[in-house]
Amino acid sequence: MNFSQKLDEAVAASRSHVVVGLDSDPSKIPDLFLDAENPVLEFNREIIRATKEIVAGYKLNVAFYEFLQEKGIEALRGSMKEIPDDLITICDAKRGDLDNTSELYARTYFDTYGFDSITVNAYMGSDSVQPFLNREGKLIFILALTSNKSSSEFQKTDTGGMKLYEKIIQDSLNWGGGGRVGYVFGANHTDEISEFTKRHPEVPVLIPGIGAQGHELEPLIRNLHTERFVINSSRSIIYSAPKGCTLTQLRETVSASAQELNSGIRSVSR
Amino acid sequence: MNFSQKLDEAVAASRSHVVVGLDSDPSKIPDLFLDAENPVLEFNREIIRATKEIVAGYKLNVAFYEFLQEKGIEALRGSMKEIPDDLITICDAKRGDLDNTSELYARTYFDTYGFDSITVNAYMGSDSVQPFLNREGKLIFILALTSNKSSSEFQKTDTGGMKLYEKIIQDSLNWGGGGRVGYVFGANHTDEISEFTKRHPEVPVLIPGIGAQGHELEPLIRNLHTERFVINSSRSIIYSAPKGCTLTQLRETVSASAQELNSGIRSVSR
Repeated sequence: MNFSQKLDEAVAASRSHVVVGLDSDPSKIPDLFLDAENPVLEFNREIIRATKEIVAGYKLNVAFYEFLQEKGIEALRGSMKEIPDDLITICDAKRGDLDNTSELYARTYFDTYGFDSITVNAYMGSDSVQPFLNREGKLIFILALTSNKSSSEFQKTDTGGMKLYEKIIQDSLNWGGGGRVGYVFGANHTDEISEFTKRHPEVPVLIPGIGAQGHELEPLIRNLHTERFVINSSRSIIYSAPKGCTLTQLRETVSASAQELNSGIRSVSR
Repeated sequence: MNFSQKLDEAVAASRSHVVVGLDSDPSKIPDLFLDAENPVLEFNREIIRATKEIVAGYKLNVAFYEFLQEKGIEALRGSMKEIPDDLITICDAKRGDLDNTSELYARTYFDTYGFDSITVNAYMGSDSVQPFLNREGKLIFILALTSNKSSSEFQKTDTGGMKLYEKIIQDSLNWGGGGRVGYVFGANHTDEISEFTKRHPEVPVLIPGIGAQGHELEPLIRNLHTERFVINSSRSIIYSAPKGCTLTQLRETVSASAQELNSGIRSVSR
């Protein structure tokens, strides 16, 4: 089964395009975890248990785990084990390096941790992402237009009739022989998302920027001309319960937040 | 002391522009370390002890350490402790993310591990690297023209009269208020290195691609119009001794390889 099929099935089974971003910061998680042997791991387990029936998958930004050193490694590995096999997993690493180095990243995140997909930065060109494309069933999400303010500085630079992100998309669509490349579009870039998904409804898109980053849901959904999309929300789901909450409150609040985003997405007619 | 001053002093004290790349792979290091509690850490310690008088510093590509999970974290931390304080340290991570995420990377690599500098990918724009610029005495090496074959695909794309890497340089030179930005140029891009270093001899450049990657030293050195450069070599130094070597052989061979590159650099008149 390739990644797109897995994505389709996960979306169908959960009736959800939501991906929960496990950007778990020890200073922000509820106090009830602070005495745990590995607070972030225990927190993640609870988030996953509370949401796994109503989301399409999880995105783990590895910066949060690298920051915690050994405990982070343990939390990354343990969280991946907690995620049901039929949900998609996205390693948000934004990597891209010489081929022997990218091969190591591919081994680490695809083979060791078992992620289905990884975000990559294609600035170094095709050979820098090739190792990520050599693995059956896996997918890379190439950064197209990111959700931050400065994204336009280089990504929208004109490169002779097309913008840089458009050139990157055009050149990379068939890398790996087709079916192994998706793209990241920040939720604020509704026009560009509209154009891309009209042309390439079969290509998976990962959309961050809804929730704590504050971009609006309705104009985004109206401009999505594909079913192969996931919308990531991190802080507005995982930190939706107050810091002093009980375990029951956490489970209920987190589940409700994920369900609210899910319902919001499904309520907009397209 | 800012990074450039530290670099100048390290080069002057060692009479060397060489940076050793600690791309340490457990499958390639000498057999004598295989019974150690942490083979890569013990190997790195020996490499550092054998070369610290004759090199300007060390570059650690974090992919090699992430691959080893907990042992890699330990090796990264222990290797950083072994490096003398007056030598420069480069975290080769090629990071760049949303500002809150880049802040975590900056905390991890600058504050926790104590690196002086980090390689960054500027595709996401200025706000994505700002957290790395907020720390006094630290420097970012922005990827300009990398040493891999595919580097021309996007880096040399024309963006209205200048190539993309030139636009990135032009826009980023004064990020952080000046003195906190350097650039990565692969050793094969001699013409571009010549032009850049003529214009900006005060800006540090990090040059990989000599050694195992096979690019030539002499044309590179003739085209360097700056003293603020370091040339990284990884595999051709750290794996210069045979796999079955003794500790004494390792020390002598590694030291001789670093010295040979150092002499090669200094023998070319500029």
